[in-house]
Amino acid sequence: MTPASDVEIGDLRFGDDGLIAAIVQDRSTLEVLMVAYMNDEALRRSIETGRTWFWSRSRKEYWQKGETSGDRQFIREIRYDCDGDALLVLVDQHGRGACHTGERTCFYRVFAEGAGDGSS
Amino acid sequence: MTPASDVEIGDLRFGDDGLIAAIVQDRSTLEVLMVAYMNDEALRRSIETGRTWFWSRSRKEYWQKGETSGDRQFIREIRYDCDGDALLVLVDQHGRGACHTGERTCFYRVFAEGAGDGSS
Repeated sequence: MTPASDVEIGDLRFGDDGLIAAIVQDRSTLEVLMVAYMNDEALRRSIETGRTWFWSRSRKEYWQKGETSGDRQFIREIRYDCDGDALLVLVDQHGRGACHTGERTCFYRVFAEGAGDGSS
Repeated sequence: MTPASDVEIGDLRFGDDGLIAAIVQDRSTLEVLMVAYMNDEALRRSIETGRTWFWSRSRKEYWQKGETSGDRQFIREIRYDCDGDALLVLVDQHGRGACHTGERTCFYRVFAEGAGDGSS
């Protein structure tokens, strides 16, 4: 991938744990597929390979999405937010989808729904 | 809002800091607008009021999106991910947008773009 601005990895605001939240969105359907975390090295690998690399907080190791499942993500664009502490990764999702359960998106369940009428 | 499953707030996996990432997505355009954090009380308030409430990690206080700017978010659906440690909040965004800069989405800047051809 190629840089799209003068902003570099070191300019981003990684948390005290060295991590930054990365939201993965399907660039075609615009579905939010998953959220995972990157440290600077995972972001570097993602940029170099054009594939999503993350840091697993539970397993304390790097993982590349789809490496074992085949459900690979090819990155088309990485955006960063106003305060530089979150990333939005637009991908082409290959295979079944992003979720290890076999669902296309990890957000396949509704917690609550409905709301006010938007006028209050 | 009304519950959409038997899953309750206590079943979600808040981090050691008591927080859960909440991705806010425009339910019409499907733009990812912002990411912020909720603790259990912020989530409770969001559900009760149908408006987005967050916990500010820097200011150590609750804040309701749009309370001062008028750029309010009316929640239509809250989804949770496969491992219960992230929320996707689908909203009707009122006002100018979600970002305090005046942009519609906080992810208005591109960090890197382009990639492989998707075949490797």
